[in-house]
Amino acid sequence: MASLSVSRPSHIFSGRLPAHSKPRMSGPTRIRMSLREDGPSIAVVGVTGAVGQEFLSVLSDRDFPYRSIKMLASKRSAGRRITFEDRDHVIEELTAESFDGVDIALFSAGGSISLEFGPAAVARGTVVVDNSSAFRMDENVPLVIPEVNPEAMRNIKAGTGKGALIANPNCSTIICLMAATPLHRRAKVLRMVVSTYQAASGAGAAAMEELELQTREVLEGKPPTCKIFNQQYAFNLFSHNASVLSNGYNEEEMKLVKETRKIWNDNDVKVTATCIRVPVMRAHAESVNLQFERSLDEDTARDILKNATGVVVIDDRESNHFPTPLEVSNKDDVAVGRIRRDLSQDGNKGLDIFVCGDQIRKGAALNAIQIAEMLL
Amino acid sequence: MASLSVSRPSHIFSGRLPAHSKPRMSGPTRIRMSLREDGPSIAVVGVTGAVGQEFLSVLSDRDFPYRSIKMLASKRSAGRRITFEDRDHVIEELTAESFDGVDIALFSAGGSISLEFGPAAVARGTVVVDNSSAFRMDENVPLVIPEVNPEAMRNIKAGTGKGALIANPNCSTIICLMAATPLHRRAKVLRMVVSTYQAASGAGAAAMEELELQTREVLEGKPPTCKIFNQQYAFNLFSHNASVLSNGYNEEEMKLVKETRKIWNDNDVKVTATCIRVPVMRAHAESVNLQFERSLDEDTARDILKNATGVVVIDDRESNHFPTPLEVSNKDDVAVGRIRRDLSQDGNKGLDIFVCGDQIRKGAALNAIQIAEMLL
Repeated sequence: MASLSVSRPSHIFSGRLPAHSKPRMSGPTRIRMSLREDGPSIAVVGVTGAVGQEFLSVLSDRDFPYRSIKMLASKRSAGRRITFEDRDHVIEELTAESFDGVDIALFSAGGSISLEFGPAAVARGTVVVDNSSAFRMDENVPLVIPEVNPEAMRNIKAGTGKGALIANPNCSTIICLMAATPLHRRAKVLRMVVSTYQAASGAGAAAMEELELQTREVLEGKPPTCKIFNQQYAFNLFSHNASVLSNGYNEEEMKLVKETRKIWNDNDVKVTATCIRVPVMRAHAESVNLQFERSLDEDTARDILKNATGVVVIDDRESNHFPTPLEVSNKDDVAVGRIRRDLSQDGNKGLDIFVCGDQIRKGAALNAIQIAEMLL
Repeated sequence: MASLSVSRPSHIFSGRLPAHSKPRMSGPTRIRMSLREDGPSIAVVGVTGAVGQEFLSVLSDRDFPYRSIKMLASKRSAGRRITFEDRDHVIEELTAESFDGVDIALFSAGGSISLEFGPAAVARGTVVVDNSSAFRMDENVPLVIPEVNPEAMRNIKAGTGKGALIANPNCSTIICLMAATPLHRRAKVLRMVVSTYQAASGAGAAAMEELELQTREVLEGKPPTCKIFNQQYAFNLFSHNASVLSNGYNEEEMKLVKETRKIWNDNDVKVTATCIRVPVMRAHAESVNLQFERSLDEDTARDILKNATGVVVIDDRESNHFPTPLEVSNKDDVAVGRIRRDLSQDGNKGLDIFVCGDQIRKGAALNAIQIAEMLL
């Protein structure tokens, strides 16, 4: 993942399904339609990171149109070369001036970079799609999952000279709400109890490398290298490394609580979450228990999810085939399974579901680029 | 784990804490008090398995008294030698006659072996402590966690010539109820939503070996060997491999639902569970959301748990130190942390907790031997 070419992670950590939900042209007959004069000028901030690399991957996969692309990173990476869509690019150091003439900037370089350079970009007329948590709860900033609440950003377009900020939700929130929202629309979720199984990728490329390194070390009987996390990750799991607040929830859990309310525009929805890191590379899983206002039987729920955009149902009880992180790795769709009536609730007002989604893709880069597509 | 000596698994999969809650004597000054004429005659059924091996480990650690011990296994293993407490033993083939003169038999050889040989042992006056699910829901068989419901077996003693069956609960149930019961006693649990993070060991020693082998293969870029499970386990997780029933719950989940009711002698308690296997060796974790009848604030809950037998509280918010499977591996106590008021419930009637326990030890062998101790 440290490589600067736009490559997939090693196949060993990929699932068995075809790589993309969307059919792709390939080989010499493919005509690149993405580099074109009527496209926006774009910038990628944090291009050397796990999500930054995935931005490039997704832009290319979706033939996102652009007339120019700037690769921005810290001073440390400036001057290095990067190949994107068969062209060489030089990574530039991020400054406020980087955004002169940029229509859309995709940010994934951490909250402090977003806080510093996001407003500078907006002041220059750039629409910023920000993957950090810096602006998510700002009431003037839309927090958007395109399949869920596209209306929140309906007045924002690129290339008008008018800058704006749009926040990409937290990965766990996106993956959870991709599955919960179609059910919420039908039966109204009153309360949601979420337990997560979160991948290394949420802590960045270095965390993925540390998991792999530690696993090798442990198998060789060596003490594991603990730089990113303060404890052994290989063959272990632990409470999410985000800071724990005075109410006992960690920040990751509170994102699920608060972002759900904002995205659903429903301050009454009750959410609790327990966020756990598991030794998996790049896709999150979530066990979600739902309480509804209105009845919703499991067969209807399954049909609703089968028809939901960006969702695939994997729910084969007979062969015990349900979503796994590996199977959704490098995939666009969020997979849902284990759909069943909750025995602990009366009637048909409760469901249990199990959801998996690629943390780097739909949990971050894909969602941001879907937002960017709505700006065109 | 396939070794027939009574050894710990490799240190690489063990936690950092001292190995046992209970202080041990060691070295040449230690006097063995376990082999003695006034102890019961015991038999271990399934002695070559992961739990069978742990039976021996725990018997030795706790200086369980015995005047003789029979090592029983399938015909395939019969004749092999096994060293236990510095003496050589020959593994015998399990037959109905094996139980002649045996006071206590510890069974962990799967449900069908228990169904076939459990009653035969009882007929010979043996008290059987059975780790399988064969008799758990039989209304004539006590289902016991010694810290929770010792009264369920108060009329059963060893060496009286009167045989009996006692069932050891499912590992996930034991670990969950070790933490939930002290809170239940104070505030009465009305509903419990459980999501598990289950280790390889629950599927036996071969599953632990497969996880290790697959991990090596995946790191070398080779396809993973899938014999025990039908899909990649290394760097992945999946819905528990138990059969899925017509209500959509798998058998493991229904054990949590039904065994809780029986152990608490409370047919009204509402439980739902989602059981997931994670790539961890030998300790389970569980995220448990609790709804109470009466108020219970988190500080009181923490104090109750600190004073509960067999429970250790690891709940350091500042340093983000909470229970992990690795830290409880090879330990007796169940660890509880992330104790906090559930924001999604009104008042003080809801709590979230996170529990870890060694699946082979308290989840199986230790609990069974604690039961056996109560027979003396």
